Amino acid sequence: MGNASKYLPFLQWCRVYDGAALTGDLLAAVIVTIMLIPQSLAYAMLAGLPPEIGLYASILPLVAYAIFGTSRTLAVGPVAVVSLMTASAVGQIATQGTMGYIEASVAMALLSGAMLALMGVFRLGFLANFLSHPVISGFITASGLLIASGQVRHILGIAGGGNTLPDITISLGRQFSAANPATLAIGVGVLVFLVFARRYLKRVLVGVYVPVRAADMMAKAAPILAVALTIGLADTFDLGARGVALVGAVPSGLPALGFPKVSLDLLSALILPAFLISVVGFVETVSVAQTLASKRRQRIEPDQELIGLGAANIAAGLSSGYPVTGGFARSVVNFDAGAQTPAAGVFTAVGIALAALFLTPMLANLPQATLAATIIVAVLSLVDFGAIKRVFAYSKSDFAAMAATILVTLGWGVELGIVAGVLLSLGLHLYRTSRPHTAIVGQVPGTEHYRNVERHAVITQPDILSIRVDESLYFANSRYLEDRIAALVAERSDLKHIVLMCSAVNAIDASAFESLEEINHRLTDAGIGFHLSEVKGPVMDRLASTNFLKHLNGRVFLSQHEATTTLRRAILNPQDNGLTP
Amino acid sequence: MGNASKYLPFLQWCRVYDGAALTGDLLAAVIVTIMLIPQSLAYAMLAGLPPEIGLYASILPLVAYAIFGTSRTLAVGPVAVVSLMTASAVGQIATQGTMGYIEASVAMALLSGAMLALMGVFRLGFLANFLSHPVISGFITASGLLIASGQVRHILGIAGGGNTLPDITISLGRQFSAANPATLAIGVGVLVFLVFARRYLKRVLVGVYVPVRAADMMAKAAPILAVALTIGLADTFDLGARGVALVGAVPSGLPALGFPKVSLDLLSALILPAFLISVVGFVETVSVAQTLASKRRQRIEPDQELIGLGAANIAAGLSSGYPVTGGFARSVVNFDAGAQTPAAGVFTAVGIALAALFLTPMLANLPQATLAATIIVAVLSLVDFGAIKRVFAYSKSDFAAMAATILVTLGWGVELGIVAGVLLSLGLHLYRTSRPHTAIVGQVPGTEHYRNVERHAVITQPDILSIRVDESLYFANSRYLEDRIAALVAERSDLKHIVLMCSAVNAIDASAFESLEEINHRLTDAGIGFHLSEVKGPVMDRLASTNFLKHLNGRVFLSQHEATTTLRRAILNPQDNGLTP
Repeated sequence: MGNASKYLPFLQWCRVYDGAALTGDLLAAVIVTIMLIPQSLAYAMLAGLPPEIGLYASILPLVAYAIFGTSRTLAVGPVAVVSLMTASAVGQIATQGTMGYIEASVAMALLSGAMLALMGVFRLGFLANFLSHPVISGFITASGLLIASGQVRHILGIAGGGNTLPDITISLGRQFSAANPATLAIGVGVLVFLVFARRYLKRVLVGVYVPVRAADMMAKAAPILAVALTIGLADTFDLGARGVALVGAVPSGLPALGFPKVSLDLLSALILPAFLISVVGFVETVSVAQTLASKRRQRIEPDQELIGLGAANIAAGLSSGYPVTGGFARSVVNFDAGAQTPAAGVFTAVGIALAALFLTPMLANLPQATLAATIIVAVLSLVDFGAIKRVFAYSKSDFAAMAATILVTLGWGVELGIVAGVLLSLGLHLYRTSRPHTAIVGQVPGTEHYRNVERHAVITQPDILSIRVDESLYFANSRYLEDRIAALVAERSDLKHIVLMCSAVNAIDASAFESLEEINHRLTDAGIGFHLSEVKGPVMDRLASTNFLKHLNGRVFLSQHEATTTLRRAILNPQDNGLTP
Repeated sequence: MGNASKYLPFLQWCRVYDGAALTGDLLAAVIVTIMLIPQSLAYAMLAGLPPEIGLYASILPLVAYAIFGTSRTLAVGPVAVVSLMTASAVGQIATQGTMGYIEASVAMALLSGAMLALMGVFRLGFLANFLSHPVISGFITASGLLIASGQVRHILGIAGGGNTLPDITISLGRQFSAANPATLAIGVGVLVFLVFARRYLKRVLVGVYVPVRAADMMAKAAPILAVALTIGLADTFDLGARGVALVGAVPSGLPALGFPKVSLDLLSALILPAFLISVVGFVETVSVAQTLASKRRQRIEPDQELIGLGAANIAAGLSSGYPVTGGFARSVVNFDAGAQTPAAGVFTAVGIALAALFLTPMLANLPQATLAATIIVAVLSLVDFGAIKRVFAYSKSDFAAMAATILVTLGWGVELGIVAGVLLSLGLHLYRTSRPHTAIVGQVPGTEHYRNVERHAVITQPDILSIRVDESLYFANSRYLEDRIAALVAERSDLKHIVLMCSAVNAIDASAFESLEEINHRLTDAGIGFHLSEVKGPVMDRLASTNFLKHLNGRVFLSQHEATTTLRRAILNPQDNGLTP
């Protein structure tokens, strides 16, 4: 049972399911459904797919996540960034509007789902950790800018394309004069309405005595209202005939179930982007889920989340959907509306299924500009210039990785952007730890404390040199330590002892261990005693398992103070001890 | 002057050059010349090049290193591992024995020299640090095995080839029956003689009252004796007619100077192997130079060494040589023979130049089996199975990187071997630091010390949780910390305060900083106080430059003990303080 409920988390909550939970879940499901319908249509368009694919991706994946996911309130489905990544990857293989494009997107969901599930089974959730926060934040900001600029053509009612900011800008510039006035009116109108709704509607409604909670929910329903209104306008004024691009006939009914067509060629072309989509989707899911869970002192299991998200994507792949992930906005709405368990997700799926069955005939006259405006308003909240400023103030090296991610994403597209960010942040981290902070330390007068000679007024001795290294010793910095000690010895001709203070050394790998052997060997040749102090328990265990302590020409002291006083005595009475090599 | 002597280190020693230094340098040069002649011929053969190229690579490069290198006693020239890497890389572009093959090897020297020099100018010496000791050691052992097995065919006098152990073995197996008895006799004879000379000759000579120093030097001259003897045998018994492969006519004279033919295609094919050769050669050079320098309390400058080694390789590229590096054996001989300054290298260059001018006619009848035996005996000292055992005992993760390096090098060649080793050791290091050791700590009774509850009998409190993290906080482990704290909070319903003890935290990057903000935010939501203790100076400076300390719902305590006692008091008297959020 314990294991079953670990891998099937719904077994934990469905046994204690009661009326209160049902009420909360049903209410949340209604609100999330209203929010998800326009979003699903819009993000499908962003991914270059027909609108029904967006609805399909919001049915079975939600049920699959409810069974395998560990978050009580996460709402999965199509999201903006992953839709853009899908468009960018699939666009390199097939042409938008073809059957091959749809098939590749569905295959992408299945492949990405399989990868996520496998990563979960093999507990590889830690891989997501190599996306640093500045890289993710920069990536999401750049993606938001790319997405918004890519939708401008739908607002203008012109052709165009491009996956990078320069391409999109050039394409817009060339076509700008062909803008369609009616489309522009619809697009700008919806934009203004949505921005107003997001910023002021709640306040206005509360002003006219609508209860706060209801006002909040009504403000969140603004996109579906915009959809209904612009369909009405298009009907009334026959906007299709005036050159306004409409969504067109959307087939009614539930998605067909089945295994997507996947050739080996397709698989090998999709494998790298599927991996990137999986990791980005997983990171977004975990951070949203973690944030919400902790508000109720609940827990999520990152590795089980991989399985949950993997199941959701496999379900998307088997039901003509495209890659899904946990969305931030919809999860917060779900949480605020009082969802208690993942059953809310199942109810939402039923709502979207009903929409796919009965609402699709009404969508034919929906202007694409409405969806574009929905996307723009949604993604502009992803753009976070404040984060760029904060990272710049906090750390120049993190900022470098962030700036590279943003520039490469805007200039060369999403895949290269995220890869550049990861490689640069790994490189900078390794560079930093490869030149660790080292300090020569001396005694704070009248105490047993030893501090950096450059920061404090301390007592040092000409023939005993104490060095503190503020980093674990491993291959990337072991040679640096050798060089540093060689340099310090070369400039001090009367040196008799070196003490390496290891209070900040959390680990010593095999390379660093050999470097210590080498340093010991060289210092022995030079007639200098080599000692360690304040070695941590696990590190000492490791050293004690080797011959190092036998080779060491000096001693290991429990404290730096003991080291200094003992060596001082040894220098004054060289006869009565074996400490001078 | 200071800057000039930094970039031209010979300015430092040539001003104080005296008779004693001259005597030491001249003697060392004679001995190293005698050692280098057979080695240069043999390693050129190993690289698939005519023997004179080996001599050319031992003339100007030595002069260039003497001007730009910082080691007083390093001897540069052709070495076994770099010769193998050259053969492997150039063999993929051109066929051995053609002019194109020679031209590509010379271009490789020039390219690798330019890379090294540029890396030196941009102070990129730290890149070599990413070759961990176990990876280098495994790589050298595997290269030694590859080289030795690749020479067996010369001892047997058969055709054959292959760059990987399986290929070489299959090739030997197919041709084995065609072995030439006379070649085999020469090859095995020289092998036995050289092994005897290396192990016992010095002892035997000392036994017959030869002075120790002279005996040592005579033992080192064994290879040139083998060369002379087997040339004599080949002359006397006309071994060439009996099917023994001889070196053949070697042109006399000094190398022609000039820029090698380099096309863009060739350049792009050589760039990756040239980089690998540069890094491997640099690592070998620096570790040899460092070891010898510290015996005399001298210093080497790793970044200047890059320039020195770069200049040597550029010189090789401009004088029909091939890639060179600092050799271990010859440098030790140079050091032991009493070389005082790099002038010894210049004198050695003169010696080799004389050999190229006057000795080459005698080399025509040198059996290739003699050179092969020289190589085998030289490289078997590179094979270090003891290191494999030691690394296995010390660290399983280092052993994994080492084993992968050895297996991939033997099975797929040198380039892939070293790349696999580097990637695996980086990956394992990141994996390790991504799941740092964390300990819940409690008070050691009667003291102000706080230790791991699992290692010590300590006092803890149910409503205050103190966690020590034994690693710097950065992007790869920041989410792990979030998860860990979320898990600890979820299992403790009566928790009021969490104290993060930061005594081992040497740095907090932007990701970890955001994680701390996030943890603080979540704990605030959950009604739990979040506190830090024992934050290091530089880390505190960084935190104080942000709003974090304002957001923090708890406090930063100087010591863990202060944290625990203050929070204890706060829980008992909730009125008179603001510590409970």
